[in-house]
Amino acid sequence: MATIKDIANRLGVSVSTVSKGLNGASDISEELRQMVLDTAVEMGYATKRSKKTENRKLCIFIENMNYESIDEFGYDIVLGFKQNAFRHNWDVDIVPITPTFQAEEKYDTYMLKNGYCGAFLVGFALHDEWMRQLEDTTMPTVLFDNFIANNPNVCYIGTDSYEGIGMAVNHLFKLGHRDIAFLNGSLYSMVSDQRQEAFESSMTELGLEIRPDLMARGYYVSDSAKYHVPGFLAAGATAIVCGNDLIAKGVMEECVQRGFRVPEDISVIGFDDISLAATYNPPLTTIRQERNELGKCAYVILNSLIHHISISKTLLRPKLIERESTTRREG
Amino acid sequence: MATIKDIANRLGVSVSTVSKGLNGASDISEELRQMVLDTAVEMGYATKRSKKTENRKLCIFIENMNYESIDEFGYDIVLGFKQNAFRHNWDVDIVPITPTFQAEEKYDTYMLKNGYCGAFLVGFALHDEWMRQLEDTTMPTVLFDNFIANNPNVCYIGTDSYEGIGMAVNHLFKLGHRDIAFLNGSLYSMVSDQRQEAFESSMTELGLEIRPDLMARGYYVSDSAKYHVPGFLAAGATAIVCGNDLIAKGVMEECVQRGFRVPEDISVIGFDDISLAATYNPPLTTIRQERNELGKCAYVILNSLIHHISISKTLLRPKLIERESTTRREG
Repeated sequence: MATIKDIANRLGVSVSTVSKGLNGASDISEELRQMVLDTAVEMGYATKRSKKTENRKLCIFIENMNYESIDEFGYDIVLGFKQNAFRHNWDVDIVPITPTFQAEEKYDTYMLKNGYCGAFLVGFALHDEWMRQLEDTTMPTVLFDNFIANNPNVCYIGTDSYEGIGMAVNHLFKLGHRDIAFLNGSLYSMVSDQRQEAFESSMTELGLEIRPDLMARGYYVSDSAKYHVPGFLAAGATAIVCGNDLIAKGVMEECVQRGFRVPEDISVIGFDDISLAATYNPPLTTIRQERNELGKCAYVILNSLIHHISISKTLLRPKLIERESTTRREG
Repeated sequence: MATIKDIANRLGVSVSTVSKGLNGASDISEELRQMVLDTAVEMGYATKRSKKTENRKLCIFIENMNYESIDEFGYDIVLGFKQNAFRHNWDVDIVPITPTFQAEEKYDTYMLKNGYCGAFLVGFALHDEWMRQLEDTTMPTVLFDNFIANNPNVCYIGTDSYEGIGMAVNHLFKLGHRDIAFLNGSLYSMVSDQRQEAFESSMTELGLEIRPDLMARGYYVSDSAKYHVPGFLAAGATAIVCGNDLIAKGVMEECVQRGFRVPEDISVIGFDDISLAATYNPPLTTIRQERNELGKCAYVILNSLIHHISISKTLLRPKLIERESTTRREG
């Protein structure tokens, strides 16, 4: 675990400056203080903060998602949340969760038992036990990529799938593609449903036909491509929109294996912009989710819920990141 | 992004003249200043957002909405925004706006000229000139009850209409009503569209028929009731959902004038919970928009946009407020 000295070395400042930053002393600038706090969080520094206000504890529950290394999807989400929370003197625990754990332990009980004032839930699936319990939880809860109706204590945060998929389809359309396929993520996911709807309405708005033989739902893994890409190619697809970057990676590999060049024969576009996407062969054109901002916003929303401001839904803008896996359709 | 030097080159004037124009110095002509501002906007010049500590000025532009006395719809929205902004050392100007003003003055130019770092727009209509300009504004802008696609500088904030209308319809359904009418607000409004969709899907989810003779769109005023309530009554409505509280007031008066008692013969439910709703005869059951919280959140979102966190959409939860204008359906 990082010490104050480690942070000082990283930032090239004195130990006492770091100390001031961590303790919110008034004689260093707000900018420097934030840099100290951000670096402390990033380096895994943990403090005992049992000052006047005890129990300033929040929790991130995380399931089905990797977050521990910088190239994993959850890393920046967790980091952004912690950076903002730390700035406001909250401690944050990170608790990886399994379905078994959810079956054994009730959400509200666990929260109470551990003295958490609120939680951020990341990576949960629609059929999870805790998702059902969120319908009437009294705990301030921000939920990534899932929506709970009619409970003022729960807010949904995510990236605007509708706009994101719209950007992908429009990008391909402008490049001359008409036979656009969609390899979506898994069935039991709210965002997969949204992206499906977004794909179909984007195609319709552009006057393109919605072809069942050019649409499939697999899982959010590379392997998904094996089962569906051959059919897309046989049906004459010239471009494939993918539910996330991992799927896109599998799609590109499957295309190449079957003698199709990316992007010359087939354009491929991902979703998320995980850090590895730029290193794919070719570097992946994708729709970026600003994950650090998602984490930061999740904290802001959770803080609002704690103060009884019942936000129902917050969506961030996606961004089109153009790299080399898409190109103009020839002929 | 254009610099002051770029603007100076384009206009063939010195950098210090451009600087004076941008900062509103008194020793250049109004005409030259306007030219500097227009060119700055045209070239995409944007003031550096986060670091300025002078010029901490935000603006609320307000149209089609009263806000000056405590019983008016806009009062708490404006108050909440100002409360949060003042807490963070921002000055807030409130500028009432007309369509004529929008035709004469460009949004970005006006913002730049007055040194505003961001704005909150309330009460604008879909066909307003500034709404069109928001599609490519570079100014951090939060927009109440309207959505601008694909511009990362603009965020939509409002109350979840879908959940609100769902609460109203479900409340009436539980009271035994089946012939539920909907008198919606004006045609050229995004929230009216959302509420229409919400009404129809709520009815469908409950297995109730969507009857064109029990739906109408008027305006957000009491008078609206005169034209549509007689038809609803003739068609056998036992309950009427209204687009806002003013419409509900007109509906209740119209019912009574035609010999129907509220709520014994007809249940009526409003939307908004303006402060007068509790004083209506009978006191109005309605769907509350938490307007002070909307204003507070609008500030939080605007502050995020200023710091380049592109929030696209934020919705707050509505609340069902049960008073005396709805009751169980007899017989």
